[in-house]
Amino acid sequence: MTEVAIVGVGTTKYGRHLDRSATDLAQLAVREAIEDARDISIKDIEGFVLSSQNPEILQKQGNAVNHFSEFLGISAKFATRVEGACVSGSMGLRTGYMAVKSGMVDICLVVGVEKCYELPSGSDIMAAFSFVIDRDWEAAYGSNAPMGFAMFATRHMHFYGTTEEQLAVVAVKNRRFALKNPKAHFQKPISIDDVLNSRPVCKPLKLLDCCPVSDGASAAILVRGDLAKKFTDTPIYIKGIGQHLINENVISSLSDLTEFTALKRAAKEAYKQAGVEPKDIDVAETHDCFTIAEILEIEALGFCEKGQGGKFVEEGQTDLGGKIPVNTGGGLLSRGHPIGATGICQAGIIVQQLRGEAPEGRQVDAEIGLTQNLGGWGTSQAVVIYSR
Amino acid sequence: MTEVAIVGVGTTKYGRHLDRSATDLAQLAVREAIEDARDISIKDIEGFVLSSQNPEILQKQGNAVNHFSEFLGISAKFATRVEGACVSGSMGLRTGYMAVKSGMVDICLVVGVEKCYELPSGSDIMAAFSFVIDRDWEAAYGSNAPMGFAMFATRHMHFYGTTEEQLAVVAVKNRRFALKNPKAHFQKPISIDDVLNSRPVCKPLKLLDCCPVSDGASAAILVRGDLAKKFTDTPIYIKGIGQHLINENVISSLSDLTEFTALKRAAKEAYKQAGVEPKDIDVAETHDCFTIAEILEIEALGFCEKGQGGKFVEEGQTDLGGKIPVNTGGGLLSRGHPIGATGICQAGIIVQQLRGEAPEGRQVDAEIGLTQNLGGWGTSQAVVIYSR
Repeated sequence: MTEVAIVGVGTTKYGRHLDRSATDLAQLAVREAIEDARDISIKDIEGFVLSSQNPEILQKQGNAVNHFSEFLGISAKFATRVEGACVSGSMGLRTGYMAVKSGMVDICLVVGVEKCYELPSGSDIMAAFSFVIDRDWEAAYGSNAPMGFAMFATRHMHFYGTTEEQLAVVAVKNRRFALKNPKAHFQKPISIDDVLNSRPVCKPLKLLDCCPVSDGASAAILVRGDLAKKFTDTPIYIKGIGQHLINENVISSLSDLTEFTALKRAAKEAYKQAGVEPKDIDVAETHDCFTIAEILEIEALGFCEKGQGGKFVEEGQTDLGGKIPVNTGGGLLSRGHPIGATGICQAGIIVQQLRGEAPEGRQVDAEIGLTQNLGGWGTSQAVVIYSR
Repeated sequence: MTEVAIVGVGTTKYGRHLDRSATDLAQLAVREAIEDARDISIKDIEGFVLSSQNPEILQKQGNAVNHFSEFLGISAKFATRVEGACVSGSMGLRTGYMAVKSGMVDICLVVGVEKCYELPSGSDIMAAFSFVIDRDWEAAYGSNAPMGFAMFATRHMHFYGTTEEQLAVVAVKNRRFALKNPKAHFQKPISIDDVLNSRPVCKPLKLLDCCPVSDGASAAILVRGDLAKKFTDTPIYIKGIGQHLINENVISSLSDLTEFTALKRAAKEAYKQAGVEPKDIDVAETHDCFTIAEILEIEALGFCEKGQGGKFVEEGQTDLGGKIPVNTGGGLLSRGHPIGATGICQAGIIVQQLRGEAPEGRQVDAEIGLTQNLGGWGTSQAVVIYSR
């Protein structure tokens, strides 16, 4: 069956872009992706997928796929916006992948964008993000993301002895990688003590255990595998793409707060499609919205045993030179998290790794890479496996 | 390559559902679709596509695909919400179609839902819908849907002599069909005089030239073609599916207000895939958000010559017994328009026609059917062709 390859990637710097609109950000990412590929112009784009979580509230702009198409100059024979909270970016990748694989289009542009700062209505940014949580059962009572992930952390500590210091190792590692990534939101080094002494957010999570919200856009160009060499000397193929959404959307429905059940299922599907096992993955970008998330993810992805994530991180196994370097782009924790863009940015970082184009201090000797992106309380998960 | 068949359809009554939440509405439509198919339970659903235009504003609920999955009891290995204003429903159908065609899933549920009345914030419903229009260039100046479509009507009248009476024929015909459809929003007969004497909205469009906003949900179950007979004796196959989005999102960018350019392209693609011509279509549901829209659509779909739509309608060619009966379900004008649901409801009506299950006064002797759904100023268009 048709293979799907990535032939161009681009991303803006993530951070606070006071001087750029959401369309400006998308434009920058798309131009970079187009220049990254060879002999593609915006007029060659046949499919256009826009991943954006909340342009309705953040930019007061619905029908965003139409709106962005005008600014980007895209006429498409397949186009849609997709949304699934924080996993929107990977939903977009998967939708673009299907558009190519099903024969609908040969060339599909996937763009993720979110401009989170400066709400036009002046409303509170956390209120805007609490929209992703069930309104009747959770958001109405003040629930928000740090609260839920703090519950995961507390249970993991209780059952497996995971420590606050181990969580801090994740934050420090990812910040160190971010210092080598000029597109990352945060650019100042941090220490374990900085993390441990940072302002409490929701016990046991402190400020530096939490990712920021960021402005930013990322783009990827997907093409039919047999056309890939026309557009680049170094196509990166999508070998497996798994997703799972479980019908447990509110945190009180979850039977186990020490593991991401949906991720185990998404990973199983992706590994099966790609014909590989966890030990075959050379480099991974995971969804470290909070430090505890990265620990739950490396366990669910099978990089280490359940309950051993804290120790695995502490031993340096997810660092450069370890068994499986994780979040070499800085992760959500330090690269930033413009919601709809994240999954696509992760793909770009793995493409860079597999091409051997990452800078020293971040480059891994890698043939097979993986990205993992989540939405909700980890109840919606996507895993993508890439190879040269 | 894999064929895709529809094996179950369901829809709520469209109207004002003061006593039902958006999830209640979805539940009703999904249960009907599941009962319409044979031997499918909610646990068999592998893919779940949710089409909803604005749950963020209308229900203050983001990540709606996760939220609805919990209420519906769906665990999916492919799931996404899609949005593209009024064409969201057909975007959903197309996404479900690709999910099956690309081999991702064998059984995909596509659900469209919108609950438009009773905004939780108490904000104005027209303000909520003006979100779909470009905020900086149009919505900020008070632009809304009737205004844009009135411009189309004025130009069509100017160039082709289309009359207000011809527009009224569309409204009266579609209302007559709605009286035979218990799921339709409006159930009182109207006359040409009623339309002509109804309250002016935006010259030349009057109240009865405009569709209502409605609450409602519709669902369709898509399966791999070779599995279809397991789930129904009367599978309806999707033979062609075309879409086009042009990079002209604001009305001032449109070079021609007398035709839907994007629709001509979407139709061409759908006809090509299905290997049929306009004359082969036996019955069609089109996006008559305003009476003028149906006239532009029958022209762009090739059912009559450009400029002749008004006359064609007046002659009864789009009525029962005419060349091509259009909107036998009542159309948006009388069936109603719960934004994200419309494209999926249209599919359900064509399925009913091709199965021969429509009531007398609506049933057409049909082998090939077509649905057409639009977003924006007709700048985003989708066409689907179905056969037994």
